Amino acid sequence: MYDTTLRDGSQREGISFSVSDKLKITQRLDVFGIDYIEGGWPGSNPKDIEYFRKVRQYELKHSKISAFGSTRRADVRVQDDLNIRELLATETEVVTIFGKSWDFHVTDAIGTTLTENLNMIRDSVGYLKSLGREVIYDAEHFFDGFHFNPEYAMETIRAAEEAGADIVVLCDTNGGLMPFTLQRVLRQVKTEIGVKLGIHTHDDAGMAVANSIVAAEMGIKQVQGTINGYGERCGNANLCTIIPNLQLKLNMVIIHPDQLEELTCLSRYVAELANLAPQEQQPYVGENAFTHKGGIHVDAVLKHAHTYEHIQPQLVGNNRRILVSELSGKSSVLYKARKKDLDLSKDTPQTKAVLDKVKELEYLGYQFETAEASFELLIWKAFKVHQPLFELLGVRTIVEKRGEYGDIISEATVKVRIGNQEFFTAGEGNGPVNALDQALRKALEQVYPEIKHFQLVDYKVRVLDGKDGTGAKVRVLIETLDERKKRSWGTVGVSSNIIEASWHALVESVEYGLLISNKIKMKELRKAVQQFRTEG
Amino acid sequence: MYDTTLRDGSQREGISFSVSDKLKITQRLDVFGIDYIEGGWPGSNPKDIEYFRKVRQYELKHSKISAFGSTRRADVRVQDDLNIRELLATETEVVTIFGKSWDFHVTDAIGTTLTENLNMIRDSVGYLKSLGREVIYDAEHFFDGFHFNPEYAMETIRAAEEAGADIVVLCDTNGGLMPFTLQRVLRQVKTEIGVKLGIHTHDDAGMAVANSIVAAEMGIKQVQGTINGYGERCGNANLCTIIPNLQLKLNMVIIHPDQLEELTCLSRYVAELANLAPQEQQPYVGENAFTHKGGIHVDAVLKHAHTYEHIQPQLVGNNRRILVSELSGKSSVLYKARKKDLDLSKDTPQTKAVLDKVKELEYLGYQFETAEASFELLIWKAFKVHQPLFELLGVRTIVEKRGEYGDIISEATVKVRIGNQEFFTAGEGNGPVNALDQALRKALEQVYPEIKHFQLVDYKVRVLDGKDGTGAKVRVLIETLDERKKRSWGTVGVSSNIIEASWHALVESVEYGLLISNKIKMKELRKAVQQFRTEG
Repeated sequence: MYDTTLRDGSQREGISFSVSDKLKITQRLDVFGIDYIEGGWPGSNPKDIEYFRKVRQYELKHSKISAFGSTRRADVRVQDDLNIRELLATETEVVTIFGKSWDFHVTDAIGTTLTENLNMIRDSVGYLKSLGREVIYDAEHFFDGFHFNPEYAMETIRAAEEAGADIVVLCDTNGGLMPFTLQRVLRQVKTEIGVKLGIHTHDDAGMAVANSIVAAEMGIKQVQGTINGYGERCGNANLCTIIPNLQLKLNMVIIHPDQLEELTCLSRYVAELANLAPQEQQPYVGENAFTHKGGIHVDAVLKHAHTYEHIQPQLVGNNRRILVSELSGKSSVLYKARKKDLDLSKDTPQTKAVLDKVKELEYLGYQFETAEASFELLIWKAFKVHQPLFELLGVRTIVEKRGEYGDIISEATVKVRIGNQEFFTAGEGNGPVNALDQALRKALEQVYPEIKHFQLVDYKVRVLDGKDGTGAKVRVLIETLDERKKRSWGTVGVSSNIIEASWHALVESVEYGLLISNKIKMKELRKAVQQFRTEG
Repeated sequence: MYDTTLRDGSQREGISFSVSDKLKITQRLDVFGIDYIEGGWPGSNPKDIEYFRKVRQYELKHSKISAFGSTRRADVRVQDDLNIRELLATETEVVTIFGKSWDFHVTDAIGTTLTENLNMIRDSVGYLKSLGREVIYDAEHFFDGFHFNPEYAMETIRAAEEAGADIVVLCDTNGGLMPFTLQRVLRQVKTEIGVKLGIHTHDDAGMAVANSIVAAEMGIKQVQGTINGYGERCGNANLCTIIPNLQLKLNMVIIHPDQLEELTCLSRYVAELANLAPQEQQPYVGENAFTHKGGIHVDAVLKHAHTYEHIQPQLVGNNRRILVSELSGKSSVLYKARKKDLDLSKDTPQTKAVLDKVKELEYLGYQFETAEASFELLIWKAFKVHQPLFELLGVRTIVEKRGEYGDIISEATVKVRIGNQEFFTAGEGNGPVNALDQALRKALEQVYPEIKHFQLVDYKVRVLDGKDGTGAKVRVLIETLDERKKRSWGTVGVSSNIIEASWHALVESVEYGLLISNKIKMKELRKAVQQFRTEG
């Protein structure tokens, strides 16, 4: 499995991952068990260079990081080619380079000769191999090239093979390939070439997943795709569909079954960081993938679910939803709680209280996929063992601008009571939420000096329903880092007022950070939950 | 082609067609050239009965209307079965009945014997045939049934064939079928059965389209699906992908080429009536299906589009889009300008000025992909032919909350000068931007009453780089609709202050809306640009 969410996936309109997003996704893909992660194209932008510099500091358990780029340019010595040098500078174990397979593109798009193109492929692959890299060769437009000039297309991949490429990937760059054409071409390629083959498809004809599966069934060794099928135009091959298809339908061993149960979570995590709404209709991981409409069939469905569902939803970490009877959620909450060392057994009234609260909040637009700190606080609160840090007396933000070219000022005041003491503080910032954050810190730092070590490292806003224009609800996600422990956590707030949503997430961010810094308090909390369970 | 948008498609969560919607869609599908239209299930709801009563009054040019229902119930005479009688009452030329193929469902879900199920199929098909109807038999769960008990599954469709069914449709009701399984089963079925076969698939494994195409390639006569792939769970087979695949890739003649050019329109029309946002990533008909990102490749794409697109977008009535984004080069800006009737020829200094401005703003975080109105204003401004609507004297927003459980209030004041007049207005809302919008409208409406017709229909916030926490930059995208003309436009604002970013996008939204409402002004602007070009 070769993931290119961070490179080809980010070509999708509207996606713009920050370096920190990319690093987070890398870690998740590694834990999940993806074999190769294509991190970016260092030749195309400085953000990708920074990513490769930073990712070197991570010790990944499973994944190899790959840098993507093109073969050397025409009439340039490979050692002098800027793109090749930038690829080497990333110091990745794996390098993926793409070259032209279509005679027309060679002569017209890059304007060189067919022979020089073969040299470019040979030189680039050979040079990278000579420096000890694992080299994956992406044969761009391979199937279209093969259609118009099969001999030349074959020559290009033969050049890559001869130069020592570890894997040659056949790309359907324009996405118009049909499965039987793929079968025919692949059969011929396999008779002429011995190198390991891979497949890279796009979904312009709705065939990206099908073509990947057909190729895998025919013995291809590497499948390239993206989480949620993100990619330009109609998207890339969707790994969230391909992986379970291969594992559950073709009985291949791709991912550890425990990790396959994380698939739905992974899909939503990446959607969240991409700031895109999850696709409800998505196979396997979509919210509706195992939704049954109410009515006469519900009993039958519940009794014999396996005969109404093509797989068990739990295998991919998804849930069955029954629209009328609202049975959703229980197991995912229990699952999440267990991950936090909190074994809420299934039938206590306290579990029900947590579940009801989660349902109520999710209905309001909350989402706990990337806000695990808020979720954990929810459990403490449901068990009534957690006291808030302060009592809010009042909060105000003002944003003001005088004249067309006047500076804009943002101020906030916060008034809180901690114990018997009242604090009234003011903050300013480059926006109302920033000002609010400053004012809140000023107040709380006087009692809780650890707060100085908490940094807000990410702040995301998602509009939940655009229909009402600026009156729509927003969800704010905040990521906070404790710089001493390099530990970070996410919190969430929802409101039709962005200031209120941000305030909620800010307060929980501080609350949670203080809680986990305090080991004695944590022990007390865990014990209390334990006791509560036993008595309850 | 057999369309079941009106029956199986309406099972999708959130879709609820009125009778009038259904009649409108029927007429569009008829003109488009769909062979069969499954109008509904008269046994399941009175709305469908009304639809069949009304649709009889239409004279369709091409399509046959079909009514859907089940075989007779167990141990009931077919003449007495309520469902069968309701099917006959629709007076449709075609009747589609489904029956059980899976032994387990026969014995456990409907609780009868395997023999009685065969009788139910035989009686129902035979009776409807004896009354002169064309009968389509849907073999529900056929592939799952075949997997567990191939002999019995074959017996059920043989019963339908022997009773005179015109077409037997093999259904992958649970949607988990893989193409090679389909091939294997279909090969066997074809050796044992002579009746015309059809295919009905669901997309739970992302294979609905692929399976339909594979079946068509193997000579199956009828493909069932829905417009936009609507359907429960992950959806049905998407006819908007299947039809162009069959016609343009397999060279089958399915639809008149003139009508194929209506496909994109049809897709969006049905989405509109279903009250669902069109899927931008959808193959062939999606807004992004032929979208190219700007940059160094745009020149090549424009010159040799056919080698970068799997089909010509015009064949399905779609358009090529060039996004103005990060790496944008000259030609993508020129292309966009030309679409707005602004022929900025390539080498004038004014073109360079526009380009430089675009680049500068993109560097600051602006993005014009979905903010075409802001892009157009940019051109007017670069040509110095556009005057702002008002002079800003001051603007202020206040968000305040008293006490832990107090209501949160959001207020804004706006002070502007228009001509010689000053306006000082206040607004309130459920958030600071909403309040700002109210205050701005109050001020401007006094001079520009058209603003009353502008509605903010979408408001999106994207945090550009999370590193600085709440001090990060945000990009605000606003979509505004002129309700009189059903025309909408997008504007953008960027700032580290969300209020300022929103303010910028709000102002441009109003500015652009007023500009395009004013035809004389527009003519003047176009003329001025023309003149500027000639002189420049």
